[in-house]
Amino acid sequence: MSQRTIRFEPGGKEVSAEDGERLLDVAARAEIRLRADCGGQGICGTCRVELESGSVQPLGSEEEMQAADGGVLACQALVASDAVVRVPELTAVGEIPALSEAQLPETVAEQFLSMELPGPLARRIEIEVPPPTGTDTEPDFERLQRDVVRACPDCTPLTITLECLRELPSLLRDGDFTIVATAGDFRTVEHIIDLASPPARSAYGLAIDVGTSTVVVQAVNLQTGEGRAVSTRNAQIRYGDDVINRIVWSQEHPEGLEQLREAILDNLNLLLGELREEENVEAEDVIGASIAGNATMVNFLLGIDARPIRRSPHIPPAALPPVLAAREVGLEIHPEAPVSISPAVAGFVGGDISAGVLATGMTDSEDISLLVDIGTNGEMVLGNRDWLTCASCSAGPAFEGVGIECATFAGPGAIGGYDYDPEADEARLSVIADQQPLGICGTGLVEAMASLSRAGALDRGGRINLKFSSSRVRESAAGPEFVLVREGEQGAPRELCIKQTDIENLIRSKAAVHAGITVLLQQIGLRPEDVEHLYLAGAFGNYLNVDTAVAIGMLPDLPRERIEFVGNTSLAGAYLALLSREARRRLVDIAEGMTYLELGDEPSFTEEFVASMFIPHTDIARFPSLMAKSGQ
Amino acid sequence: MSQRTIRFEPGGKEVSAEDGERLLDVAARAEIRLRADCGGQGICGTCRVELESGSVQPLGSEEEMQAADGGVLACQALVASDAVVRVPELTAVGEIPALSEAQLPETVAEQFLSMELPGPLARRIEIEVPPPTGTDTEPDFERLQRDVVRACPDCTPLTITLECLRELPSLLRDGDFTIVATAGDFRTVEHIIDLASPPARSAYGLAIDVGTSTVVVQAVNLQTGEGRAVSTRNAQIRYGDDVINRIVWSQEHPEGLEQLREAILDNLNLLLGELREEENVEAEDVIGASIAGNATMVNFLLGIDARPIRRSPHIPPAALPPVLAAREVGLEIHPEAPVSISPAVAGFVGGDISAGVLATGMTDSEDISLLVDIGTNGEMVLGNRDWLTCASCSAGPAFEGVGIECATFAGPGAIGGYDYDPEADEARLSVIADQQPLGICGTGLVEAMASLSRAGALDRGGRINLKFSSSRVRESAAGPEFVLVREGEQGAPRELCIKQTDIENLIRSKAAVHAGITVLLQQIGLRPEDVEHLYLAGAFGNYLNVDTAVAIGMLPDLPRERIEFVGNTSLAGAYLALLSREARRRLVDIAEGMTYLELGDEPSFTEEFVASMFIPHTDIARFPSLMAKSGQ
Repeated sequence: MSQRTIRFEPGGKEVSAEDGERLLDVAARAEIRLRADCGGQGICGTCRVELESGSVQPLGSEEEMQAADGGVLACQALVASDAVVRVPELTAVGEIPALSEAQLPETVAEQFLSMELPGPLARRIEIEVPPPTGTDTEPDFERLQRDVVRACPDCTPLTITLECLRELPSLLRDGDFTIVATAGDFRTVEHIIDLASPPARSAYGLAIDVGTSTVVVQAVNLQTGEGRAVSTRNAQIRYGDDVINRIVWSQEHPEGLEQLREAILDNLNLLLGELREEENVEAEDVIGASIAGNATMVNFLLGIDARPIRRSPHIPPAALPPVLAAREVGLEIHPEAPVSISPAVAGFVGGDISAGVLATGMTDSEDISLLVDIGTNGEMVLGNRDWLTCASCSAGPAFEGVGIECATFAGPGAIGGYDYDPEADEARLSVIADQQPLGICGTGLVEAMASLSRAGALDRGGRINLKFSSSRVRESAAGPEFVLVREGEQGAPRELCIKQTDIENLIRSKAAVHAGITVLLQQIGLRPEDVEHLYLAGAFGNYLNVDTAVAIGMLPDLPRERIEFVGNTSLAGAYLALLSREARRRLVDIAEGMTYLELGDEPSFTEEFVASMFIPHTDIARFPSLMAKSGQ
Repeated sequence: MSQRTIRFEPGGKEVSAEDGERLLDVAARAEIRLRADCGGQGICGTCRVELESGSVQPLGSEEEMQAADGGVLACQALVASDAVVRVPELTAVGEIPALSEAQLPETVAEQFLSMELPGPLARRIEIEVPPPTGTDTEPDFERLQRDVVRACPDCTPLTITLECLRELPSLLRDGDFTIVATAGDFRTVEHIIDLASPPARSAYGLAIDVGTSTVVVQAVNLQTGEGRAVSTRNAQIRYGDDVINRIVWSQEHPEGLEQLREAILDNLNLLLGELREEENVEAEDVIGASIAGNATMVNFLLGIDARPIRRSPHIPPAALPPVLAAREVGLEIHPEAPVSISPAVAGFVGGDISAGVLATGMTDSEDISLLVDIGTNGEMVLGNRDWLTCASCSAGPAFEGVGIECATFAGPGAIGGYDYDPEADEARLSVIADQQPLGICGTGLVEAMASLSRAGALDRGGRINLKFSSSRVRESAAGPEFVLVREGEQGAPRELCIKQTDIENLIRSKAAVHAGITVLLQQIGLRPEDVEHLYLAGAFGNYLNVDTAVAIGMLPDLPRERIEFVGNTSLAGAYLALLSREARRRLVDIAEGMTYLELGDEPSFTEEFVASMFIPHTDIARFPSLMAKSGQ
């Protein structure tokens, strides 16, 4: 194969490549991260680049490689000569701002974080150790131990890495017996993982949410608790868009598990690199990571065979993996930093859900609460301070925009709000960061569905009404479609179309969630109106209108004040666990105390699912507020 | 430099070498281990090899390189051409048999080892795990954990290495849920360090004694407790013959600490390799190591700066280092095997002494006992079940034969018993393994001193009596000397001579021990006769006659039935700690409960030392049994 040189502009970074390599991969090697919301599947168009010189070959057809405005999709273009590639501003990933810092109810934040030192996963303290004398002959390590435990009484039993033990005698004596110690909580034991001369440098920790479709990393200053998050698509999407497909991939390819591990690790390390660069933080100063994710994602991240999750009775390989050192996991932070993973309940109810329960504070009250976390899977937890029951349904990745051509990741340029006015035949769009509309994110898709249904462009069965009086409705080779955004509408660079199959995917997703909630309530013997608080977490962030979620029949028709968007509770729980020892303990209690209901074993689930495949439902009587509105 | 080829016979192993390399080092690289009892200092003559072809250059003078019978000392000969080197049987190290398996009083063995599973440092068990079902949905790790803890209730809290967690799902399912788990005790937590399919292979552990001059490794079958030990000279001797000189070396040379670490590690790994070869054991099946040694030796082995030991108040860097994984230490056994180190009391009273107290069982009785451990340092512990006080004196390495030209390591060919008959002017020798006498070991030196003193060849001040009527006494350029063994006497290949300076070294050593014992007793307010049991441990093994030790004034003149040789108690304690959890706990209690008396701070120590520089003592009244014998 020929060696080629590819230069990326702006910046002029050059990297050599072989004929046949994907531009997307070449860019990654040059540490230029492109958006590729669909994971490089040629669907989303967000990896569009411009070829200033040289030529490329299409991976599939020429047509699939071509992007709007004469660009090419980096995921579909193969190196064929030396080339100069321009990365448009909208394609460069540095543009994705923080959208999803962990949010916490004030009561919860107070409960875990109000103490001065709530027991972070790792901490850095400056200690003045009295020098040994003839009457105080405690050895160096025991001397340090004594004073560290005096400063943090919960740092016990306290041990030390060999590396630190080697440095201890000279650091103590060269630094007049003042030393900066970094200690990490490895659950059964506290480890001194770093020693240095004063002054103490700022220390950071990570809260990480590993979702099937989306990955979020938040860097947190461990002194102030302040942090900043960045997120991206889970790069594993190229190996399958849900957990089952990825488990199949990992089992059917000899290096499959390792490929999945590397994909997510690259994601995390890239996000981490951005955060570190922005905040000017050394890797050694990131001293702990708290991770929440579903069981499959956590297993892939750790390189653990996930096959028990796939086979009945669908158990995770480990509910509570040991706290590991970052070097073992492959996270590019302090090599000995503790990496703590939120405990799972079952194969399909992971540590993201335990973290979610923690973050909502629902176990602090007698009120019955329902947490609904919608990602690629939908999980729901019902309970209060005395009991918790959970279930999981395969919502599919439609709400995260995966597998839907007009969809995109909830970053700048994504349409998060959509309202179609049939009178004017115009759409009112809210675009994230007020940029030109590039695609529509999960929230926008739900709003679009509700809006089209209201306008009559969709019937109650979710079929696009071909008789609807707008040129937006048309029949394509693939079936009926509706033009959500015309080219040029609010500056859109290309037309955005929703297909009949997309609608069906979305309806299946919402039906799965609704059926899950219904069966869970039935099994406990409760009615929807017994739920005092419905916490909606996950993909939709704060953008979705509660009325819309009820209008499409995803959520039960509760008084609206009982429904609350709580954002990314997985990340919020990971954040709590990063900062509070009590939170880490509570997480374990929550996971251990939760009863798992296998919906697949409940015959009523299939019935409820089928009944929910309407907008809002076959039984409209379950939605009295909608009946009242429509005058039925 | 020219590349040469050196062939070693018998065996024909070839290795390339550069001009100027020492033959001793070339042999080591070829994995041919030569005896070099003095550590390669050109003193002991035990590295004698024969040059069959080719030439060598002397490191120092030609004379220093030449050995008896036309051989050369491998430590003094530098490569100068291609060469064929013959290693005589007596030089090859494979010949050193097990001399020092751990010995234990029956009461102690019973106390710690009588249970069926006394809680070894690491254990291997075959476990049948019930497969998961719809009603038993415990995850893989928690499932294994449950059954391991059921089988060994003290294995808790139980965690697992990431490596094992990765293998767990497939090993369970491919092996019908029967699995062989290896778990190691890391003090605060038990780790699953290895998983395999059945059947379970035999597992071994190591008990290791790291002395300043001598290193012993015992491989123990963890099922039966049976073991076999091999020992060698500590290769660090080349960097200094006592701990202070080696600390100085480590501080004054940029790579000094690392050189010391590598030297002892090579020692251990070579001994280990021999044991593994003999018993046909894989490295992965050696699953734990229990180490006792003085604080300096332990620090060098771990690569820890030992300077706090040298400076007042002479504290060790750590009294109780964490349990480390073998890969961290560099021991060539299972990489995750726990390496547990016996806790130190003070800079000069190490874990070898805590181990010794444990092994004697002296803390089980109300009787006042005195443990005297004589190695390169002399340490003494006085006490009973209620209290323990210890002290240390710099005995010097003379008792281990280091620095004495006629001396050798206590291996085959070493003279362990010596009795000079002035009437016949003949010496009666006991030679270890009944081989031809090559040198005299520590025990032999003490017996020779006692014997010459009795015969009148030494006066009470330890001076060689030039008027003694034997041609064995002569004056050399270096002063008076006594021919202990004539060439040919009992087949001796060379003459063995003791010099006036050797005698002085030996007297200093015994005087330090005696003064230490005396001051320790005085400080506690006890008289020698209050000691019910005197345990003599260390260099002398079982070979020294108790009467002799009293006759030269090393030990107090107690009724002989109160004095007991207890062999290598450091090794015996390490052995107990390898096999028993209770022993490991007790070791920590012993070390923490011991009061250290700094003899250097006691003015009476110097007085006592000077008074003890006679045979047996300036104050003969302290030795009533000797007075009675000599009719004084």
